Amino acid sequence: MGKGGMSEGNGPENQDVEEENMAAWLVGVNTLKIQPFKLPPLGPHDVRVRMKAVGICGSDVHYLKTLRCAHFVVKEPMVIGHECAGVIEEVGSEVKTLVAGDRVALEPGITCWRCDHCKGGRYNLCPEMKFFATPPVHGSLANQVVHPANLCFKLPDNVSLEEGAMCEPLSVGVHACRRAEVGPETRVLVMGAGPIGLVTMLAARAFGAPKIVIVDVDDYRLSVAKQLGADETVKVSTSLQDVSVDVEQIQKAMGADIDVSLDCAGFNKTMSTALSVTRSGGKVCLVGMGHNEMTVPLTPAAAREVDVIGVFRYKNTWPLCLEFLSSGKIDVKPLITHRFEFSEKEVIDAFETSARGGNAIKVMFNL
Amino acid sequence: MGKGGMSEGNGPENQDVEEENMAAWLVGVNTLKIQPFKLPPLGPHDVRVRMKAVGICGSDVHYLKTLRCAHFVVKEPMVIGHECAGVIEEVGSEVKTLVAGDRVALEPGITCWRCDHCKGGRYNLCPEMKFFATPPVHGSLANQVVHPANLCFKLPDNVSLEEGAMCEPLSVGVHACRRAEVGPETRVLVMGAGPIGLVTMLAARAFGAPKIVIVDVDDYRLSVAKQLGADETVKVSTSLQDVSVDVEQIQKAMGADIDVSLDCAGFNKTMSTALSVTRSGGKVCLVGMGHNEMTVPLTPAAAREVDVIGVFRYKNTWPLCLEFLSSGKIDVKPLITHRFEFSEKEVIDAFETSARGGNAIKVMFNL
Amino acid sequence: MGKGGMSEGNGPENQDVEEENMAAWLVGVNTLKIQPFKLPPLGPHDVRVRMKAVGICGSDVHYLKTLRCAHFVVKEPMVIGHECAGVIEEVGSEVKTLVAGDRVALEPGITCWRCDHCKGGRYNLCPEMKFFATPPVHGSLANQVVHPANLCFKLPDNVSLEEGAMCEPLSVGVHACRRAEVGPETRVLVMGAGPIGLVTMLAARAFGAPKIVIVDVDDYRLSVAKQLGADETVKVSTSLQDVSVDVEQIQKAMGADIDVSLDCAGFNKTMSTALSVTRSGGKVCLVGMGHNEMTVPLTPAAAREVDVIGVFRYKNTWPLCLEFLSSGKIDVKPLITHRFEFSEKEVIDAFETSARGGNAIKVMFNL
Amino acid sequence: MGKGGMSEGNGPENQDVEEENMAAWLVGVNTLKIQPFKLPPLGPHDVRVRMKAVGICGSDVHYLKTLRCAHFVVKEPMVIGHECAGVIEEVGSEVKTLVAGDRVALEPGITCWRCDHCKGGRYNLCPEMKFFATPPVHGSLANQVVHPANLCFKLPDNVSLEEGAMCEPLSVGVHACRRAEVGPETRVLVMGAGPIGLVTMLAARAFGAPKIVIVDVDDYRLSVAKQLGADETVKVSTSLQDVSVDVEQIQKAMGADIDVSLDCAGFNKTMSTALSVTRSGGKVCLVGMGHNEMTVPLTPAAAREVDVIGVFRYKNTWPLCLEFLSSGKIDVKPLITHRFEFSEKEVIDAFETSARGGNAIKVMFNL
Repeated sequence: MGKGGMSEGNGPENQDVEEENMAAWLVGVNTLKIQPFKLPPLGPHDVRVRMKAVGICGSDVHYLKTLRCAHFVVKEPMVIGHECAGVIEEVGSEVKTLVAGDRVALEPGITCWRCDHCKGGRYNLCPEMKFFATPPVHGSLANQVVHPANLCFKLPDNVSLEEGAMCEPLSVGVHACRRAEVGPETRVLVMGAGPIGLVTMLAARAFGAPKIVIVDVDDYRLSVAKQLGADETVKVSTSLQDVSVDVEQIQKAMGADIDVSLDCAGFNKTMSTALSVTRSGGKVCLVGMGHNEMTVPLTPAAAREVDVIGVFRYKNTWPLCLEFLSSGKIDVKPLITHRFEFSEKEVIDAFETSARGGNAIKVMFNL
Repeated sequence: MGKGGMSEGNGPENQDVEEENMAAWLVGVNTLKIQPFKLPPLGPHDVRVRMKAVGICGSDVHYLKTLRCAHFVVKEPMVIGHECAGVIEEVGSEVKTLVAGDRVALEPGITCWRCDHCKGGRYNLCPEMKFFATPPVHGSLANQVVHPANLCFKLPDNVSLEEGAMCEPLSVGVHACRRAEVGPETRVLVMGAGPIGLVTMLAARAFGAPKIVIVDVDDYRLSVAKQLGADETVKVSTSLQDVSVDVEQIQKAMGADIDVSLDCAGFNKTMSTALSVTRSGGKVCLVGMGHNEMTVPLTPAAAREVDVIGVFRYKNTWPLCLEFLSSGKIDVKPLITHRFEFSEKEVIDAFETSARGGNAIKVMFNL
Repeated sequence: MGKGGMSEGNGPENQDVEEENMAAWLVGVNTLKIQPFKLPPLGPHDVRVRMKAVGICGSDVHYLKTLRCAHFVVKEPMVIGHECAGVIEEVGSEVKTLVAGDRVALEPGITCWRCDHCKGGRYNLCPEMKFFATPPVHGSLANQVVHPANLCFKLPDNVSLEEGAMCEPLSVGVHACRRAEVGPETRVLVMGAGPIGLVTMLAARAFGAPKIVIVDVDDYRLSVAKQLGADETVKVSTSLQDVSVDVEQIQKAMGADIDVSLDCAGFNKTMSTALSVTRSGGKVCLVGMGHNEMTVPLTPAAAREVDVIGVFRYKNTWPLCLEFLSSGKIDVKPLITHRFEFSEKEVIDAFETSARGGNAIKVMFNL
Repeated sequence: MGKGGMSEGNGPENQDVEEENMAAWLVGVNTLKIQPFKLPPLGPHDVRVRMKAVGICGSDVHYLKTLRCAHFVVKEPMVIGHECAGVIEEVGSEVKTLVAGDRVALEPGITCWRCDHCKGGRYNLCPEMKFFATPPVHGSLANQVVHPANLCFKLPDNVSLEEGAMCEPLSVGVHACRRAEVGPETRVLVMGAGPIGLVTMLAARAFGAPKIVIVDVDDYRLSVAKQLGADETVKVSTSLQDVSVDVEQIQKAMGADIDVSLDCAGFNKTMSTALSVTRSGGKVCLVGMGHNEMTVPLTPAAAREVDVIGVFRYKNTWPLCLEFLSSGKIDVKPLITHRFEFSEKEVIDAFETSARGGNAIKVMFNL
């Protein structure tokens, strides 16, 4: 990227499109700057993508507020963003499956394909994962990025770029449902009706779950869940005292055994409730990460062969997400509640809107 | 059981075979009495078995000391004992697979075969299970019992009756290994070297585990584990402060990733260690039940897709246990450390010996 | 039992309920007679059901025409029929889950619950299976039958008795889809658009298959399949010469890899096509039984890890079928093309209609 | 390759290592020539390996005799050989796991890591596989090869280079046993006692199979199988008339249900026998490729839910093979019956010895 560029007035230089590539850099707590972002060279199996839609994830907000998320710490300025879709501008010499002009959704993680996890079919556990906006790897809230072609999935004609960007959060729900083996015989409980709870609920529905009960502490969120297709909603408190009351309410709402509980909150209380209410031989999938250390009735659950299933991101989910979106089995459009331009002025507004929660479910940049 | 002696000369008296049947009744805290136990009628698919070897399980001791175990409470006098083998005396009219004189090991639980669990292949979760010495169902520490033929497994010639009785505790280890999918590619950690830890270790070996590390707080137990075939032993403290130290020691002892941890203790500390030390994508199987509510780092484990697998008893394990014993893949004889007669005098001694632990691993009655 | 008409005024006569029970007896080739059928005694776990809807299956027709089906031979007069639903008239003393008046669909096979298959969760393979109208066991085309309560499934209010009877053929499709692991990522080919091909297609759709291509030699059948929801239909010949042409047509119709092929015809040609057209690593499920010995390119398929999955009847399918019917995910009503009374006069007509095929898909008796 | 001899006195000349690299080129039917083979450049993730042991596989012989194998055709001169082990000479700049001097066994296939098969954990089905000595890709019967480091597996100290080369054929057996889910509860039938039958038998044993019956037409092969650990051997004819006789003999030899049959011959007769003799609900794994189109009783087997499982090569097998060899669970040394030098003179002799069969099981080059 010709810093030369900065080299005004030299016409032919315009080919170096890269000079103009701007990105949202996280440079300190609560501080984002839109600054140039030099693209890496385009490898033979890479594509260059012009970003069109980038969503804000809870982890992005976390990084902005604290410069950390889980055990990852931002030590150097980092481009943020990882829920994204765009249009191919250029393809590497060996790329056969995509051409310039293709609209694509991007899977954010590049893995090594040499470790046991990669070779064994669980590449999401690759210890050498390079993932958009997980330090020290740069993210995708930028005009352009270079990315491996095999992680760019062509959008069907009836799927918009914004919907394409939604494949990322939706993938979390899809991966959880796959790991928990949700299907047409699985009665599902979802704990938490935040963005991840909602996409997980949508995924469970698309996997065929015949009945879904969703639980939250917030009436508005539950009303959204209901509109999006939850069969029953249960309002609960945050008090651990109420687990047995909640269990009773949930059982009444389900009116049948609960086969799988997907805990998209991840607190002592939600997990205690999930472990208690799931039927013998069922599964509790821990998706949310509210508490780190947990105090929960694990033994009585294990003694009923209720398994606790962990999830980390996702693998091989984009094609299925696009199938769900294209077929109409899942409609993510109602989740996109706020839209912003990609400008110095709006970028912080956008993150603040996402951070406030309230009626904001998914905040999306249109670039 | 010399019926001759008891009923000399009175042929028709043979009906009251049952009257002479004696059993060990739990009649109060720390109180066992050997009293008559009337056998139920022999159904067409039942057999009558003369007991020859009955082992004492931790749960038997628990009932003796507290009249309860987990959520089960002894409210009426109950015959105790459930690890057993004996010789067939009589078979029901429809029994084709066994004849009088056959030496058999008994699986203790009778299930309904009408519920979803039974029909779906997980009969161990049957809510109507009738299990030896789980109140209010009587156990098998008796001269004779009547039991369904399909729960009595003929012993190979080279398997003794005592070994037959050991199929019950061994089944716990076998079921845990099956649920955790232990095989020749699975490096295994066993937490706890008590009787269940030891049989689980033996089972893991028989399933092909190439390397097994076992952990305990007690040097004697670890030395037994080593003699029984553990590759490495790690002595730990009971202090939660030491989890990270223990993790390091265990990793060093294994010298490779730990694929499956079988927690046969079930305390906050053992489970914390297991969750931390198991590789991404591995499994922790909770076998022991030391603590009920657990405070453990569940979220970081789940975020590495370490699944927590529960076990409840076993299903379809006797044939495999007998195969393991007969082929020599497992030798349980060294576990039988103490033997007692079935008499009023010795029965309490036997339970006290088992309760004391120390060098007592398995205490066995010879009837 | 209300043919009050039959026994007017003679109260005590009610005991001989059984004498009045009439059934359709297969007494010789092409010969059915409606004659009394004495009910067995009602066991404690049994129910007595008044039949209301009984469908005719291809196997019923086979027995009528040849007195045999597969390796089963009718040697004694046998009541025919096994696709059925009715209303509970009386329940055994231990039955807790059903009451007189309940509308139920009946699963036809009674298994032993003592063999390895039953205990291991694959009761459909029980060698002691007693199955309606599989000689020498009597079937259910009768006014009443006695059957185990756990094989009688209560119909949801919005599922008719005829739909209840359709659970039996639908179960074949459901079991095939389960064994072939059809889900929302499985592109499905169905070979054959007869009654079993159609229910299998409906099941695949309900399991979430995103695209289904169905193949037949008959235009009418294909048009029905299309109306019932097939995405694409392919008309083929019966000539083995055409396999490669058919493969090409099918691939074009699918426009993507074929993950699972469900061969509901079972001829050399259909199986050759299925083996050739299924993607590497996919599955071919053999549902139909057109040919016994097969000449097919098995090796090249196996060398692409295309597995051949067998199916025998079904297990644990009724609850799922009822869920599919009740939720509207499957509509079997269009498959019921012809209805007959249960009378000497109509019974043979009904079987002839079913045997002729043509526009007859499912022929149903209303009793 | 005696660098001493070649480069006497000219240290710096070491750069032209590649020029001196000699390999066995297949240049026409029955024609092998030892000629220079120019190594590709060493990539950052590659290693350069000096070959020490290379075995001859049936496919190598096939190519030599016919210039084809399955659907692959040799159109240009091609270096042959793919069962190999050697010593690392040089490692690429990014290789962290190996150093010069390490003894390694080589997995022969390089895959794309971009297709669905690779990403989904079944890289052996990758359509872009580049596999040693599968045209047009060169093989490894050469002084040196360049290969990805992640496909070179360090030999434990107690595993020889020849044993390392045996990981390749052994992998076929290991992969078959994995796909057929052989374990300590699986009674196994092996059809065919040629090299692949023998390694498959050894693998089944290592996976814990409690009883193995092996079948062949040749007494010598059966005696070898017996020495290598088969529990029972059954001599059969090649006549299709004898299937039912063979089934009876095999059942008698097993004395129990046959859970899994591994057909390492792949002829109509062996497959017919396997399909008939395997228990309901069992598996037949088709490993050998004797016949292409098969005429077999597939329908009756499928109607007992006997599944036919295909295998293509292997994936992720080297670490397990090395574990089996190092632990002594498998001893492949008796399979290596003949050894040759890597010279123009001996190379054809070696292939002829392998082609003749007889008492030659595995023919090995020592380089």
